[in-house]
Amino acid sequence: MYRLVLLRHGESEWNKENRFTGWTDVDLSERGIKEAIQAGKTMKEKGFVFQYAYTSYLKRAIKTLVYSMEEMDQLWIPVEKTWRLNEKHYGFLQGLNKKETVDKYGEEKVLLWRRSFNIAPPPLPESDPRHPVNDIKYKYINEEGATPGTESLSDTINRIMPYWHQEIIPRLKKHKEIIISAHGNSLRAIVKHVKQITDEDIITLNLPTGIPYVFEFDEDINLLNDYFLADEATLKALMDEVANQTKK
Amino acid sequence: MYRLVLLRHGESEWNKENRFTGWTDVDLSERGIKEAIQAGKTMKEKGFVFQYAYTSYLKRAIKTLVYSMEEMDQLWIPVEKTWRLNEKHYGFLQGLNKKETVDKYGEEKVLLWRRSFNIAPPPLPESDPRHPVNDIKYKYINEEGATPGTESLSDTINRIMPYWHQEIIPRLKKHKEIIISAHGNSLRAIVKHVKQITDEDIITLNLPTGIPYVFEFDEDINLLNDYFLADEATLKALMDEVANQTKK
Repeated sequence: MYRLVLLRHGESEWNKENRFTGWTDVDLSERGIKEAIQAGKTMKEKGFVFQYAYTSYLKRAIKTLVYSMEEMDQLWIPVEKTWRLNEKHYGFLQGLNKKETVDKYGEEKVLLWRRSFNIAPPPLPESDPRHPVNDIKYKYINEEGATPGTESLSDTINRIMPYWHQEIIPRLKKHKEIIISAHGNSLRAIVKHVKQITDEDIITLNLPTGIPYVFEFDEDINLLNDYFLADEATLKALMDEVANQTKK
Repeated sequence: MYRLVLLRHGESEWNKENRFTGWTDVDLSERGIKEAIQAGKTMKEKGFVFQYAYTSYLKRAIKTLVYSMEEMDQLWIPVEKTWRLNEKHYGFLQGLNKKETVDKYGEEKVLLWRRSFNIAPPPLPESDPRHPVNDIKYKYINEEGATPGTESLSDTINRIMPYWHQEIIPRLKKHKEIIISAHGNSLRAIVKHVKQITDEDIITLNLPTGIPYVFEFDEDINLLNDYFLADEATLKALMDEVANQTKK
């Protein structure tokens, strides 16, 4: 049996301030660090031993991985970082307060930008210092799509899936137990594919932060089972919290 | 110009207790963490921007890298971990107090085990739980020499040099500015090779902990210059400290 664990990073400084983050490289909050450590504790208790890890180019995901792996005494495993696992790029919304944006543009429009499958928020221009073309992280990557000015969820999925097929699946087959520490929308892409969720339904799926999400596969990578490493009440509280972020 | 920075990890829990560590996977002390953060600060101030990093399988080197890269806002760079950059394996000495070992076996014998070029301390037997064959880190590595019971400095050098030539040099040529976070003896191997130091002289070279050691090369990897990122007084105090660890 093969096991893949998806771990959505814990609270960041901007989650706390309720701002759109996207590719902005904000740090974990104290609570976010505690969530990562707790995730590591839980995975250790449940007997997980990873041979390989993936994460994004963003420190909130990288540090979530480091803190949880430290707790598991697994700092030594290989870690592959890729821009393809970055959060969805939120375009001009990045940095804006979610509630203020709702007040200004209306709940409907913001919900469309946040949660529609094919519609991207208006892009950042390349002249904007926040645009990825001006970020050293992406300077030496010669891959199409590595410096978007905005993205829809569909765009995010499209840049992740080639990596999933060419890199992650072969690695899972080789190492049998791997972990991906990433973001709400980049993990949505994977969950959508693995669980064959429709474009409409994936929009309302809110992954809880800091809770390891386990997928068990057979040798042909057919999904056998999937479950969170948390009790029902904890899960519900966390999912409601995410869903309510733009509610007035 | 190409730049390689060698960073010897800061104080570990066992440095503090004055015990032989070798491949024992002990953590950094609070002071060690501070040294790593300070190293990151210094490299940032001096304008270093790395494209690639190497470290060992041991958490004191991995965490030194993480803390310094976090300080430089460079957590996103690729990090390659390898057993080949591990500390020299100290055989049966691992875990013993350095001063007590001197009292028991005599200063001369301990100095020979610690600092002779070709003589290894008596090995750990494979039945010993501390032997690398019983450590999950090395379980899936199919490379000769990856599970030694002891090592001389010469053995340590011999397992590092193929990696230096096949992996590190091509990477330096490609990425121009790289960092290696490792250990007293694994870094000695590199310094010996790069500076063409004799077998006798390398034994007395004590690299300071937590001080970035910069090597500048031309395009054919001829050494142009090497220097520590620290003032003379700081350097001398640190080097004396290492040299005095087994003095009575």
